[in-house]
Amino acid sequence: MGETLRVGIAGLGVVGAAAFRLLERQAEALAARTGRSIRVTAGAVRDRSKKREVDLSSLKMFDDPVALARSPDIDLFVELMGGDEGAARASVEAALTAGKHVVTANKALLAKHGLALAKVAEEKHVALAFEASVAGGIPIVKTLREGLAGNSIERVYGILNGTCNYILSRMEREELSFDQCLKEAQRLGYAEADPTFDIGGFDTAHKLAILTSLAFGTAIDAEAIHVEGIEGVTLADIKAAEDLGFRIKLLGVAQRTREGIEQRVHPTMVRKSLALSEVMGVTNAVTIDADAVHELTLVGPGAGGEATASAIVADIADIAKGIRSAPFGLPVARLQKSEKIAMQRHEGGYYIRFSAIDQPGTIAAIAKRMAERQISLESVMQKSDPGAEVRPGGPVPVVLITYATTEQLVRDAVDAIVADGTVAEKPQVIRIERQ
Amino acid sequence: MGETLRVGIAGLGVVGAAAFRLLERQAEALAARTGRSIRVTAGAVRDRSKKREVDLSSLKMFDDPVALARSPDIDLFVELMGGDEGAARASVEAALTAGKHVVTANKALLAKHGLALAKVAEEKHVALAFEASVAGGIPIVKTLREGLAGNSIERVYGILNGTCNYILSRMEREELSFDQCLKEAQRLGYAEADPTFDIGGFDTAHKLAILTSLAFGTAIDAEAIHVEGIEGVTLADIKAAEDLGFRIKLLGVAQRTREGIEQRVHPTMVRKSLALSEVMGVTNAVTIDADAVHELTLVGPGAGGEATASAIVADIADIAKGIRSAPFGLPVARLQKSEKIAMQRHEGGYYIRFSAIDQPGTIAAIAKRMAERQISLESVMQKSDPGAEVRPGGPVPVVLITYATTEQLVRDAVDAIVADGTVAEKPQVIRIERQ
Repeated sequence: MGETLRVGIAGLGVVGAAAFRLLERQAEALAARTGRSIRVTAGAVRDRSKKREVDLSSLKMFDDPVALARSPDIDLFVELMGGDEGAARASVEAALTAGKHVVTANKALLAKHGLALAKVAEEKHVALAFEASVAGGIPIVKTLREGLAGNSIERVYGILNGTCNYILSRMEREELSFDQCLKEAQRLGYAEADPTFDIGGFDTAHKLAILTSLAFGTAIDAEAIHVEGIEGVTLADIKAAEDLGFRIKLLGVAQRTREGIEQRVHPTMVRKSLALSEVMGVTNAVTIDADAVHELTLVGPGAGGEATASAIVADIADIAKGIRSAPFGLPVARLQKSEKIAMQRHEGGYYIRFSAIDQPGTIAAIAKRMAERQISLESVMQKSDPGAEVRPGGPVPVVLITYATTEQLVRDAVDAIVADGTVAEKPQVIRIERQ
Repeated sequence: MGETLRVGIAGLGVVGAAAFRLLERQAEALAARTGRSIRVTAGAVRDRSKKREVDLSSLKMFDDPVALARSPDIDLFVELMGGDEGAARASVEAALTAGKHVVTANKALLAKHGLALAKVAEEKHVALAFEASVAGGIPIVKTLREGLAGNSIERVYGILNGTCNYILSRMEREELSFDQCLKEAQRLGYAEADPTFDIGGFDTAHKLAILTSLAFGTAIDAEAIHVEGIEGVTLADIKAAEDLGFRIKLLGVAQRTREGIEQRVHPTMVRKSLALSEVMGVTNAVTIDADAVHELTLVGPGAGGEATASAIVADIADIAKGIRSAPFGLPVARLQKSEKIAMQRHEGGYYIRFSAIDQPGTIAAIAKRMAERQISLESVMQKSDPGAEVRPGGPVPVVLITYATTEQLVRDAVDAIVADGTVAEKPQVIRIERQ
């Protein structure tokens, strides 16, 4: 039996308490698996008087997480406070600098300072592990960093935000508006009072930034990601998607293109033949396309105290066993710079929904603008909602599905159609994810 | 940069050649990831004159794989010959005994001698790695051994044989008989000329034996598995399943029960709400139910040279990095003995299809035999195939779905119904996998 691994946890809310309990519950099994006893010896919380789900009396408690991070009483620092600056950043830096291993679930911190932190970890020969930062209990970091080590990855894409997937699933299932579903998600605790971070796609972008670095060996850079949220997705889009054999999902996608590594987060038309189309509710899922393994999909809980704790404990067990990987798979000096690829250059199929003015020649006018730009149409659907009131001469929905083209051509065509005056509202454009 | 890791490959058929090529193609990336150069330096093949997809001229070639395994020219021995005795067993033993790491895709060897081999690996402090032995490119061994290290696993179940899943998927999609689909699978190279090993469930059992040991810390023992194949599944069953909201899959299931760890391979009614029901064709998938992560599903290619090579190379990269896990997650001395649980004690729901003699009172007689044993029925469906000829007084299909009960009671009830003379053929009984 090796020396005891002494763990300090900063942040003992839902996730921290779950990690503490799991380490206690599995103490014997973990010792057998890793050859070392793993023990939580210290903690840091903002408010010691707060009632908690766990008994902290056996721990040496700190008010200052930086003091915990530097404490000689611990070998491994678990950061679960959140935030991309302040106490989280300071304490993780302090722990690494003091030669202690760090396990964190903090995607915002990693997206912003991951490269600098990985450099410190490398210099100090300690682990910086963050399985819990992406897709909760799904071991996607380990899969990309170790399980697919022999692959050249072409694309990694996933449903990485449970709030958005819950809202989109519910809109479809119950034919409710975005606003109604958001309110329900807030009532059930799946969405924050200020939901911007989730529904605006920023949470997905932080997670995608981590996956991109692991998959493509690029320096993590959330700024290189094109981000759109789901606020503009309407029930009409969801129904049209259904009719055409798609589901709308908020995806984070990173893919190798001729231009470089394209990183984007946006509502996406996902064909029902793709595994991710079946993933409903708060569940997360990631698909990897790679040269050797072809296609691999992992589906599981993206959040929740216990699922996140599962990932944290797996990281701690790896460290106890002496497993060391470079945080992002490669030595920091080997990571390539991320370049932001302009979305105008994106190539793919498009869903475009127009509120067309119902008069002779409208569809011909729309189709002409597409044809002028060599945009081929896979399908054209003019269909009113069965229940909707149709006024003669009023707007009717026209939905186009294009074959692969470029974003620039699609935007140009849409602008030309708007300028023609044949549509009543701003057209909706949603990218189609390729098979 | 550490010392070069010298790899010898015994068996350079489809998988061996793919592994060799992948190691060459990814040489630079693997060196960056692992800090060591990984080089295939030697090989062993049965017939050196055979034309191959790879150029072996740079390798030191052996006729005897045991001589390769012991050769001072290699540090790591890759066994891809197959077979649970003979050259495969002798060479793996020789390599481990000589203090060399072993990577193998040989599930049959592991199912039969895995425990003894793990013991030698442990004594010699070398790795015995076998990611490629289960579910091809899906990193399920790593996930169970490392990714879920903090979990207590309740159940692991999966579609582990592409041949069976291809046949069952095709029967459903094209409404063909088992025999027709088997012939097609043979024509397309998805099934062997003698398909017994696949369709009889034995291949799935070998893979399940490995998963069970990893998931539950039991000594690997394929003899403890109850095995039934898919030969008896009819198109009538597949259609009835469809009508009732199920798909029929050949599953390998290991689950914790009051009696111990139940291990079984058999055709299974899988509710369409379960992720595995959506997995069609030759694809493999595994779902894990565990206390912390709740439910995790991995879907990917179960076979094929490149996908299997992906798993082999990942194992080699881990070894190059110095990652050492006990082969089955725990030291051999800590593995519990596997006990075979009698299927009579299995608890669950059942699908039972009778060819009932069409006369007044038949359904009442069947229902009475169920009620006598306190078996509750979730649904009863009497339905003839639309196209089928119905003779008055001839047999009509009656399908029951029971709530959870025990296998003993179901078998007793079915025997009683047969004895009553109300059915024309041997009834079909298929277990339902719980949610």
